[in-house]
Amino acid sequence: MAGPIDFYFDFSSPYAYLGSHLIESVAAKHGRELLWRPFMLGIAMKGEKTFPLTEYPMKGDYSRMDFERTARYHNIPFVMPAAFPKLTLAAARGFLWIDRQDPARAVAFAKAVFAAYFAHGRDIADPAVVADIAASSGVDREAFAAAIEEPEIKRVFTASVEDTVFEKKVFGAPFFIVEGERFWGADRVAQLDEWLTRGGW
Amino acid sequence: MAGPIDFYFDFSSPYAYLGSHLIESVAAKHGRELLWRPFMLGIAMKGEKTFPLTEYPMKGDYSRMDFERTARYHNIPFVMPAAFPKLTLAAARGFLWIDRQDPARAVAFAKAVFAAYFAHGRDIADPAVVADIAASSGVDREAFAAAIEEPEIKRVFTASVEDTVFEKKVFGAPFFIVEGERFWGADRVAQLDEWLTRGGW
Repeated sequence: MAGPIDFYFDFSSPYAYLGSHLIESVAAKHGRELLWRPFMLGIAMKGEKTFPLTEYPMKGDYSRMDFERTARYHNIPFVMPAAFPKLTLAAARGFLWIDRQDPARAVAFAKAVFAAYFAHGRDIADPAVVADIAASSGVDREAFAAAIEEPEIKRVFTASVEDTVFEKKVFGAPFFIVEGERFWGADRVAQLDEWLTRGGW
Repeated sequence: MAGPIDFYFDFSSPYAYLGSHLIESVAAKHGRELLWRPFMLGIAMKGEKTFPLTEYPMKGDYSRMDFERTARYHNIPFVMPAAFPKLTLAAARGFLWIDRQDPARAVAFAKAVFAAYFAHGRDIADPAVVADIAASSGVDREAFAAAIEEPEIKRVFTASVEDTVFEKKVFGAPFFIVEGERFWGADRVAQLDEWLTRGGW
């Protein structure tokens, strides 16, 4: 039985957004389940002593250009948000809560959050905005707003982030793991595709 | 008249080594001159507050794996050097000196230095080793050994590195610039290729 592709991302990562568009067809092509796993990239950065790409003096300018050029290359809608990055705790906890009840709806919600931020410039750090997006994805708005404040959801999400960063050693986003093989970056999706085609090399 | 591809690299960068293998056929395909431009990546890192990839706690392990997997993917000989990174001042100054007399020989020398380090594990920080490589490339060994200690070569190379980092804003390696369009990383060679095919997008 072919294993799933674990897709680790932060809702605030431009390359994770781009990677989310690229990985879906690759997973479908190889008949692999795609497991969306939001985490807090900031936790990984703290241990790695890295920073959001836009905060580097020279790499920052290059990255802003590359996000847009790479999006156009792949025909993915993209407008660099004026406020970047965002703390995406509400969206990530909300994903976890929806995922428990309806994984397909959770994926629809995740795509809507990414699009809200990277195509429409909405403030995905704001729990009210995130609840609106959930409601548009067919989720009960009040229940969602309450759920993302529940201590149990917070605890489970925190444990999930710790597992992602400290056990799985996920230090960046997007990050893909399939049958133990690790691929970091939207620009490694092509190798992942080839890896599954050839069964490694 | 189609402009050249400027290829900025440090002899100690694994991805620059891999990129050097990938860019040649792309340049040839599009009839573009490829200008090899060694610089000191450490100077860029200082200003960017970045470090050699292998020094990051989690990214370091991943990178060592990715260098090898990407080399195998492209069928490029690669053995991670036990001592990494290296200060490649002697090789870079030597390249500059050879390039003034015979650009084609300088490229042959550059390829030989890369192979010495990343395929054969030789110590390319050692001026004597670098002089041996130059001699194997058909350069007079004694003249080479003297040239890389000349104040004028040192001064010109330092000015070249400052231009690369502070004027051209080259913050990583490999870095390619063609007609003002900037591409960072071995994994951007495919986009560079497509950019030249389409004339941008």
